[in-house]
Amino acid sequence: MSMNESNKTPTTIVIFGASGDLAQRKLVPALFHLYRKGRLAQGTRVVGFARRPYSDEDFRSRLRTGVQEFGRGQFESNAWQSFATRLRYFQGELGTGDDYRRLEGFLREFEADGTHRLYYLATSPTFYGPAVAHLGQADMVRQGEARRDIIIEKPFGSDLASAQALNRSVHAVFNESQVYRIDHYLGKETAQNILFFRFGNTIFEPVWNRRYVNDVQINVTESVDVGDRGGYYDQAGVLRDMFQNHLLQLLTLVAMEPPASFDADALRNEKVKVLSAIRAIDLGDTLRGQYEGYGQTPGVAVDSQTATYGSLKLFVDNWRWQGVPFYLRSGKALANKSSEIVIRFQCPPHLMFDLPRDYELTPNVLSIFIQPDEGIHLKFETKVPDSPQETRSVDMEFHYRSSFPDAAVPEAYERLLLDALKGDASLFARSDEIDLSWRLIDPLIQAWRSPEAPPLAIYEPGSSGPVWPGAPESPDRPAHQEG
Amino acid sequence: MSMNESNKTPTTIVIFGASGDLAQRKLVPALFHLYRKGRLAQGTRVVGFARRPYSDEDFRSRLRTGVQEFGRGQFESNAWQSFATRLRYFQGELGTGDDYRRLEGFLREFEADGTHRLYYLATSPTFYGPAVAHLGQADMVRQGEARRDIIIEKPFGSDLASAQALNRSVHAVFNESQVYRIDHYLGKETAQNILFFRFGNTIFEPVWNRRYVNDVQINVTESVDVGDRGGYYDQAGVLRDMFQNHLLQLLTLVAMEPPASFDADALRNEKVKVLSAIRAIDLGDTLRGQYEGYGQTPGVAVDSQTATYGSLKLFVDNWRWQGVPFYLRSGKALANKSSEIVIRFQCPPHLMFDLPRDYELTPNVLSIFIQPDEGIHLKFETKVPDSPQETRSVDMEFHYRSSFPDAAVPEAYERLLLDALKGDASLFARSDEIDLSWRLIDPLIQAWRSPEAPPLAIYEPGSSGPVWPGAPESPDRPAHQEG
Repeated sequence: MSMNESNKTPTTIVIFGASGDLAQRKLVPALFHLYRKGRLAQGTRVVGFARRPYSDEDFRSRLRTGVQEFGRGQFESNAWQSFATRLRYFQGELGTGDDYRRLEGFLREFEADGTHRLYYLATSPTFYGPAVAHLGQADMVRQGEARRDIIIEKPFGSDLASAQALNRSVHAVFNESQVYRIDHYLGKETAQNILFFRFGNTIFEPVWNRRYVNDVQINVTESVDVGDRGGYYDQAGVLRDMFQNHLLQLLTLVAMEPPASFDADALRNEKVKVLSAIRAIDLGDTLRGQYEGYGQTPGVAVDSQTATYGSLKLFVDNWRWQGVPFYLRSGKALANKSSEIVIRFQCPPHLMFDLPRDYELTPNVLSIFIQPDEGIHLKFETKVPDSPQETRSVDMEFHYRSSFPDAAVPEAYERLLLDALKGDASLFARSDEIDLSWRLIDPLIQAWRSPEAPPLAIYEPGSSGPVWPGAPESPDRPAHQEG
Repeated sequence: MSMNESNKTPTTIVIFGASGDLAQRKLVPALFHLYRKGRLAQGTRVVGFARRPYSDEDFRSRLRTGVQEFGRGQFESNAWQSFATRLRYFQGELGTGDDYRRLEGFLREFEADGTHRLYYLATSPTFYGPAVAHLGQADMVRQGEARRDIIIEKPFGSDLASAQALNRSVHAVFNESQVYRIDHYLGKETAQNILFFRFGNTIFEPVWNRRYVNDVQINVTESVDVGDRGGYYDQAGVLRDMFQNHLLQLLTLVAMEPPASFDADALRNEKVKVLSAIRAIDLGDTLRGQYEGYGQTPGVAVDSQTATYGSLKLFVDNWRWQGVPFYLRSGKALANKSSEIVIRFQCPPHLMFDLPRDYELTPNVLSIFIQPDEGIHLKFETKVPDSPQETRSVDMEFHYRSSFPDAAVPEAYERLLLDALKGDASLFARSDEIDLSWRLIDPLIQAWRSPEAPPLAIYEPGSSGPVWPGAPESPDRPAHQEG
């Protein structure tokens, strides 16, 4: 079965902030891969907009380095030569309205009638609002027959008020249908696969509810510390950096009801239903931590109280999930880099085996590994051979990389850019999702700064983070051979 | 967790037909392994009863060869020396009452008070009835403080009438609680594990019913042909040889309701409920086959109509399984030796993915491999990377041998002999199970001999057997590496 998997209409992709890391490391390598696969329409161009005085050649050479260093697979020089002719650079100031009007003129010079535009805000978040306003003032947004869409990078706001203000700015110029708020976690194959796993199979959905699930864990751990991002991170902290976006988005995929279709709004309606059903998080159900030595990071206040680790217990107050705790955890400078979703089921209701009175069967555990070693493990009980009725847990395993050749797994940005080019917003956050996420997280950010905040647990870098009595341990990743 | 796993009371195991293959290849190797593991009570002895004029030494030497050739693992000479002192031989005729009385005297000579007896009928089935009667007449069955139990090998009867007659003979002498009718299939670890898989886990039982299961296959294929057993086989055929016992027993394990305990009668009550609920099998729901060249086998009539292959579709008329077809297949001279249970689930009720209108998702399939390569595979759908919404089936796999070292998996006879020594009849067939199995199979045997019988499908040796339009194909065993 093969699907329509390319953009049909010539599009100009304008990257604002094109001299930055994101364009070099992620966006242009992703666009180049799409180009090589023939998924970009004839006449599609990429225009970089930034302050630096690059020539087209400077710009191309910088991006070539990026593709060579950060792209997948073998670098194909010939393909690059051909792709590079589609790359243009335009020098301008994000805060200067005239530069947008000049940009519009520049684009018109080579754009055929009916060419779509996809603006990509890869700038510092402080420019999101002004850039959107300038695009509007320069009359670059009005849609005639050709689409004018915009991708906005995260973070989308730094709290509820700023996110709402930004949404107001955006909606003053763009319709919601033109807006693609990116969370690259949703572009990961394994994140998308959560929905295919749940709804493309018959046997998981019947046990995917409070009757069978004991608890759910969503663990996104990083082994790196804040590095040279101290200035940003000390303002953000782990709640803004990871919870408001990635972790809550993963939660919606795990907890949502089956939508009638994968249409962007059908899907996002279900995600919004989950976010609206999350009970306000009790401060007593949170744990905040900071790794030892964080205060010595350049850009970080010596006595900083910023959390580099967080753990939340929350409840989804609906028919399916009532009473089932969801444990969300994330932090920096931990033992492993790993993203996993762990569904722990209840114990069997009745033990018919001839086992000691206090014997407890290990509950079934389904683990979905988003990264690394993408795959699915199912822990179940089996009889120990040569014993009468003793049981032991074993793992049934599926590894993405064994079943699909490595090269075939694309970067998240490939998927997301292609979807935006095709006008499919399923994997992008709608304004109400952003709003609801902040409504959950913002009060915690405030509370963690208040006198009622839980004490800041100091943890050793490279450890598994602070221990939270009562919360289930993250199950050890079982040993296995990779395919 | 470790369980009480040994026989506590000295027992004399009397093997009738001790000069035969079964004693040499299976029974004594199994007893020797139990002895080495310290699972036989002090004072336990094995006495062989047969017609041949063996000395104790002849007998021991013959059995030593059997253990060396057919036992598991390294032969331990010292252990054998010690075990061999517990082996005695008694020459006698199965049809001669006096020989039983002499045997009783012989046993009394060395048995301490309170020694149990376990009689094992490893003879030709024609002697089951007479041997049981002679045991009774020789007063070898009356239970005082010490148990007097009997294991009866298969086949248990050759049709309903003969099985009922044999049960009457047995019950004239033994209480049902003293009787252990063996089906070595039930002693296989993987067969026992079916119940642990179903009832030691939370997540399978909720989908183990007509709401989610589309059909069930039980396939027991043999690659060998009838070999030098033509005389026996031509009388028996595949229905008697495989269906009445192994396949129906496996069916009960798959289909039964959860018993309250693993107590022998609780378990067998549930199995009986399944057997009683099986709808009389329609002749049109059967297929019979014979491999090419069968008629040339020594002992087989040239124009024999005996089926060496059979396939049945049957229904379990109860709340859980109403309308779900069970396909049972077995045959000789096929491509593979394999025993597997395949649960095919229904397709997901609704396709939300953006797929062509006629796209069909592959249903989930759970395969339990009894032999070889004991393990469990779960086929499920996953998203094809770098496609928008295309899906493909992948396998999650568990291999018994990867999780448990090979040496630890005992032969079926070890488990069954130990259970009988301990007085646990859970894995043995009760008289009502035997009766019900024959009530299902006997009419088919008759019908396959009648003019209404389906035509005998001739198949090539080494093929996968006759094709039955309408029945699901046995799913290909997926390729994988063994642990």
